[in-house]
Order: sequence, then structure tokens, then C-alpha cells
Amino acid sequence: MLSLFHTPGACSLASCIALEEIRETTDVEYEVKTVSFAKGDQHKPEYLTINPKGRVPALSTESGILTETPAILLYLAQRYPAANLAPLDDIFGLAQLQSFNSFLCSTVHVAHAHKFRGSRWANEQSSLDDMKAKVTENMTALFTQIEETYLKDSESEPWVMGANYTIGDAYLYTIACWLAGDGVDIAIFPRLNAHFNRMENRPAVQRAIAK
Amino acid sequence: MLSLFHTPGACSLASCIALEEIRETTDVEYEVKTVSFAKGDQHKPEYLTINPKGRVPALSTESGILTETPAILLYLAQRYPAANLAPLDDIFGLAQLQSFNSFLCSTVHVAHAHKFRGSRWANEQSSLDDMKAKVTENMTALFTQIEETYLKDSESEPWVMGANYTIGDAYLYTIACWLAGDGVDIAIFPRLNAHFNRMENRPAVQRAIAK
Ligand SMILES: N[C@@H](CCC(=O)N[C@@H](CS)C(=O)NCC(=O)O)C(=O)O
Ligand SMILES: N[C@@H](CCC(=O)N[C@@H](CS)C(=O)NCC(=O)O)C(=O)O
Repeated sequence: MLSLFHTPGACSLASCIALEEIRETTDVEYEVKTVSFAKGDQHKPEYLTINPKGRVPALSTESGILTETPAILLYLAQRYPAANLAPLDDIFGLAQLQSFNSFLCSTVHVAHAHKFRGSRWANEQSSLDDMKAKVTENMTALFTQIEETYLKDSESEPWVMGANYTIGDAYLYTIACWLAGDGVDIAIFPRLNAHFNRMENRPAVQRAIAK
Repeated sequence: MLSLFHTPGACSLASCIALEEIRETTDVEYEVKTVSFAKGDQHKPEYLTINPKGRVPALSTESGILTETPAILLYLAQRYPAANLAPLDDIFGLAQLQSFNSFLCSTVHVAHAHKFRGSRWANEQSSLDDMKAKVTENMTALFTQIEETYLKDSESEPWVMGANYTIGDAYLYTIACWLAGDGVDIAIFPRLNAHFNRMENRPAVQRAIAK
């Protein structure tokens, strides 16, 4: 059985959504194990044996443990091809999808993390305040790029990869959930806003959020 | 033909190494297009039509342009399977490799970037100095994790994924090249140091560096 180590509100929601999407077509059993940031669970020895990096998500499988959102999402898409969560037979298309997810992971998520996790990269309170003050501007700029470069207006291309829903949509939605807290009004991005609403109407997304 | 947009010393070296490794088994034609950071080429309109994010690497292919190191590396490994640069038939193994590359991209590369690119995340000079001062400590901690979690001592497992050389090795080597400049003596990591030397002995790596 699969176990997903998840914290409510964290980027592990993307992996939870993917698992729920898979359940629409495939009989997959998985459990969610909650890692409480409030209790500091992610730094405790038990969890560090799961993920020495002290972060969520982690996915425990029969073959071993996987970490890093883009890798977990790719694994789920490849392992459960019936769910059709990635263009598995299109080398370029799959790379485009991984490119989008890598951008979310290495640039967009990281920009957001400077709000509350600035102490990873600096020590002085003034630096942490400075980083925090720039988050709204950075997230606005990055989502402007997402709005203009990746999302389309046409109804025939409602998803990140165009006509087909993929793991990239689950990941984008997860990070878009942080915008309000980051001081960005999602309504300034009409395509993203429509994407967000489409996501919230999906039963799998509703089930993932309820977990 | 493939064109790789590359800057000497940048993370685009990993993609260049992968292309040179592929040339050992496959007839692949590609050209390197140099993007000069000194001249600010990455911010110029011509380059922004290639990569709106204003970064290297970008790989131009017959199907379109790809960005993000982990995605470009996956694309090359999948497109040229004879080079055997990834465990393409092993869903879990491939996800492990992508997990390693995602960690390099989202955490290790980002930790290094706080040395010279702090202005992405903060405005005050004091914050930039504070970030810069923490880079040695952060890169040491992250490479300690790489040394202990990913690299092995045994001669039968000389590479990140064990017995087989992969795109993860090209990427690790690329970032390890930055350690000296980040104030970290690679000699404190015996396994990494041996890995680095093995990499420097590969003809493909030597050709990539010469470009
Ligand atoms: N690159 C990793 C980042 C994981 C990450 O930073 N997760 C955050 C939650 S969104 C975390 O666990 N933070 C806990 C901490 O920093 O202590 C991924 O995409 O999976
Ligand atoms: N996540 C991207 C990061 C690319 C990146 O940050 N590249 C650096 C060079 S190592 C760059 O182009 N910097 C130019 C700049 O920031 O202006 C990847 O892995 O490809």
C-alpha cells in the first residue's frame, strides 16, 4: 500500500490530488499520514528516517520512499497510466510537463517559501522581513508569466498542457491556493482564476482537500 | 538540429555533458549558443523569445523549446535511449532519479543562487550580504546530505543511481563545480570527491567543458 506523508496546506496536496484522480479509474489503496508542522514533526527522528530532508511530501511505496513533488507526480502518472495524468507516449510533451513542474518547484514554490522560511537562507530579522515584504511582488510576477505563457483562453485548452488534464494542473492549483495568503488577488489573472474554479469543481480535488 | 543555450559556468553545463555523453553512442548534431551574462544577454528581447524566464539552459528542438535542467535531461535520456542515461524501464528508478535532480534544482542550486542572485528575493544590501554569508554553511549541509544519503563507497556503485551512470551524475558534477567558489572544500566529502574525479576523467565531460 502507498502512504503519503502530507501536511494540510503544504505542497503535498498536489500528490494527494493525483492519488484521488487515479482513484477515479483505478483501484488504488493509499493512506495519508499527517506530518504536523505545528508540532515540528518534520524534524523528528521518526520522520527523518522517512525523509532526511525534513520536508513533505514523501511517498512510501513497496519499492522504497520517494520525495520531491515533481518526482512523486511523475511516478504516479507512470504507474497508473489508465488515469491519463501525463503524455506518457510523447517524449517532448512529457518533458514540457516536467519543465512546468520543475519551474513551479524550483522558482514559484521557492519564491513563496521566502515568506515564512527565510531563515533557510539568512539569519538577521531585518533580512527575513525584507524577504517577506517582496513575496507579493515576486508571486505576482511569476503568476503573470504563468498566465501569459502557459494558460490559454480557449475552452478547448482548459489545462496547462492544453486539452488534457495532467499532474501539472494539480501542482499549479496547489501553489495557486497560496496566493491569497501571499497578498495576491487571483482575480487579476482571468485564465488562472478560471483554472482554479475548474479545479475546485473536480470531485478528486474536493476529496483531497477534505482529507 | 538541437541548439543548447548555454553560459559557461552555469547549470547548463549539465545538459551539455548529457549531449556529449549521447554522442558516444548516437549520431546527434547540436550546436551551443552562448548566452553572455556579462553582457546581460539573458534579459534581452531576442533571448526572452527563447526563454521568457530569462535563464539558461534552454534547448531548442524540432518540436519546440524546452527549459529547466531536470526536464531537458529527461528529454535527452528518453529521446536517445541507446546512451542509457536513465532507467527508462523502471518507473520507481526513474522517479528516484527525477527526485534527486529535483532536489538539486529546487534546493541545492537555489541555496547556491543566494550568493549572487539574492536580489531575486530581497532588496536591502544588508539582506544580500546576510544571504551571501550563509551560502558556505548551507552548501556544506546540503552536500553532507548528498554524501551520506545518495553516494556510496563501494566500487560497484560509483554513480548516484548505483552501478549505472545517469543524467543525475552530470547534474551533480555541474553543481559540485561551484563548491570551491562557495567556500566549501570538496575534499571534506570523500565520496563526492571520488565522484568528481571520475566525472573529470570522462571524455564527454572534458569535451563539454572545452565548449
Ligand atoms: N522541493 C520539495 C519542497 C518540499 C517542501 O519544501 N515542503 C514544505 C511544505 S510546502 C515543507 O515540508 N516545509 C517544512 C519545513 O521547511 O520545515 C518538493 O517539491 O517536494
Ligand atoms: N530551475 C532552472 C534554473 C535556471 C537558472 O537559474 N539558471 C541560471 C544560471 S545557473 C541563470 O540563467 N541565471 C541568470 C540570471 O539569473 O539572470 C533550471 O534548473 O534550469
